[in-house]
Amino acid sequence: MSGKANAIVAQSGGPTAVINSSACGVIQEAMKSDKIDKVFGATNGILGVLQEELFDISAESVEAIDALKRTPAAAIGSCRYKLKSLEESRADYERILEVFKSHDIHYFFYAGGNDSMDTADKVNKLAADTGYDLVCMGVPKTVDNDLAFTDHCPGYGSVAKYVACCAAEAGKDTEALYTRDTCTILEVMGRNAGWIAAAAGLAAVSEEDAPHLIYMPETNFTFEKLVADVKEVYKRLGRVFIVAGEGLRDKDGNYITAATGEFAKDSFGHVQLGGVGEILNAVIEKEVGIKARFNKLGTNQRCAMHFASLTDVNEAYMCGQEAVKAAMAGENGVPVFMRFDRKPLEKKLAKYL
Amino acid sequence: MSGKANAIVAQSGGPTAVINSSACGVIQEAMKSDKIDKVFGATNGILGVLQEELFDISAESVEAIDALKRTPAAAIGSCRYKLKSLEESRADYERILEVFKSHDIHYFFYAGGNDSMDTADKVNKLAADTGYDLVCMGVPKTVDNDLAFTDHCPGYGSVAKYVACCAAEAGKDTEALYTRDTCTILEVMGRNAGWIAAAAGLAAVSEEDAPHLIYMPETNFTFEKLVADVKEVYKRLGRVFIVAGEGLRDKDGNYITAATGEFAKDSFGHVQLGGVGEILNAVIEKEVGIKARFNKLGTNQRCAMHFASLTDVNEAYMCGQEAVKAAMAGENGVPVFMRFDRKPLEKKLAKYL
Repeated sequence: MSGKANAIVAQSGGPTAVINSSACGVIQEAMKSDKIDKVFGATNGILGVLQEELFDISAESVEAIDALKRTPAAAIGSCRYKLKSLEESRADYERILEVFKSHDIHYFFYAGGNDSMDTADKVNKLAADTGYDLVCMGVPKTVDNDLAFTDHCPGYGSVAKYVACCAAEAGKDTEALYTRDTCTILEVMGRNAGWIAAAAGLAAVSEEDAPHLIYMPETNFTFEKLVADVKEVYKRLGRVFIVAGEGLRDKDGNYITAATGEFAKDSFGHVQLGGVGEILNAVIEKEVGIKARFNKLGTNQRCAMHFASLTDVNEAYMCGQEAVKAAMAGENGVPVFMRFDRKPLEKKLAKYL
Repeated sequence: MSGKANAIVAQSGGPTAVINSSACGVIQEAMKSDKIDKVFGATNGILGVLQEELFDISAESVEAIDALKRTPAAAIGSCRYKLKSLEESRADYERILEVFKSHDIHYFFYAGGNDSMDTADKVNKLAADTGYDLVCMGVPKTVDNDLAFTDHCPGYGSVAKYVACCAAEAGKDTEALYTRDTCTILEVMGRNAGWIAAAAGLAAVSEEDAPHLIYMPETNFTFEKLVADVKEVYKRLGRVFIVAGEGLRDKDGNYITAATGEFAKDSFGHVQLGGVGEILNAVIEKEVGIKARFNKLGTNQRCAMHFASLTDVNEAYMCGQEAVKAAMAGENGVPVFMRFDRKPLEKKLAKYL
């Protein structure tokens, strides 16, 4: 590019506590560059591009842009809209480039998960094929911590800290009232990855501390093992605190929320409906005979800015900054990665594995 | 009483973020008095007294006692054990006095809700009837904020702050992803009282902010109204954030979780099971035709010390202190109350009423 061009920043997929911190990093860094004029925001991710719903986010006040760093969820707006392959959805990709052209956009910063990285990659390829000058940079984002290449993902640290605290606090609640509410199940996010569930163990200091059991989607979950585990902990401590990922699956890879066997039926023979927390709750009450209850933090866990990790906020911001710095240095089509030593974390959580 | 006597402190009912702050106030104030020797803790409330499971809590380190002020749940242990009338459960009441006598306990500080205040009152009456020197003082505690006489209850301020923050944060999440996850339901505690649900509106600044709808147990809930309300908000904003108390009831006073009418059935004609969040979720998806999800904070809301209200912590501590001060000043059988101006709060929440 010669002279100044415009940039666009978009957010995709499930919000996190810090995806706005990344956007802030992109915007503030881009506004420093003499190659970039305006920075547009795309309302609701790639949908906003397709529908040409853009706004000049660099025209917002300095204070408003800075406040993004500590605002949860996705302030520019997110979406779940998966573009298919270039062959199948060529019209969509061409539309994206058309909108970019009409707004003189030559830098595309896309914060999202694996699908968003893939979308940015395909837009980039079509631009190259058609001779349109475009730099596409991915900014990693997901609470699930399951992105390729990067050691960990912005968004994960905050949900990990929050969930660990929630397990410790609700664990004390269960300990206080175990004579009545003997078993608590904390259902957490992570449909295919157990990172969030695993993090719930981070605040445990002794063997008596919650959580006593953690079930992750990667393990082969069976109701038989659940019942045996709960009985063992109950016998030892008189109370049980369980953390369960929302995506628990049986050995055949089927979600237990779609289970049809004997354990999936209540005492009237009706199939148990509901999420993992509810099903575990029902099976434990029926098979172990102790009173159980479940907490489902839901979207509150991924947007808990009130207890966000400052490290996570800062890393997310830096990922946004680095995407712009790399683009200005001539890189293209490379998502930002982070490197890190995982060993201390693995050691801490070994007892649950 | 002439000379020194021992005191006992017990906790009852559902834990809160600050019931330990009250215990701390009792213990630290009692240890200042020259009328009190040891302060016993009763493991798991009145159950601990009945089973003579007491321990000398005043023998704990100064640091450990002080840490109670910022420790959630009930560190001494709580229970849900309702003593019946003096006539029906005389043996239990006599057992309590017997245990008190054998440990030279003449001061009984009981932190709890209406039932606990009642228990303390009955123990007090029997002591008076049988000529045993006993001072019983109630320390108010409940997240539900439904205790008689006191303006508000220690425990409520913290859950109110937490739930308001959760509604604001999850509301931003819904706003970010409304193109897909259009409706969010936040189920909160309060089986018979809507104070916690109402508090979820405290962080809303504009009409567009979550929560858009709040349903409390005191209102006559109908599914027809729910569907009409959701349609109206959806038409106006394109998204809907609902806060619902766990104890919603229909006009006949029946819990909607036990509903049997047309709205209570899924599209296969099966009766919806589960809590309020789950039922509202199913009815909205079926009748309004938008995707909904629900968060159930469960016990996490009542023990969220990580976001407790400092005012609440301090008030809870002072209630504990005042109970001891009043006992030392010769009062007996009077629970501690708080007075407060409710008008600003009522004004803030008027739009939901």
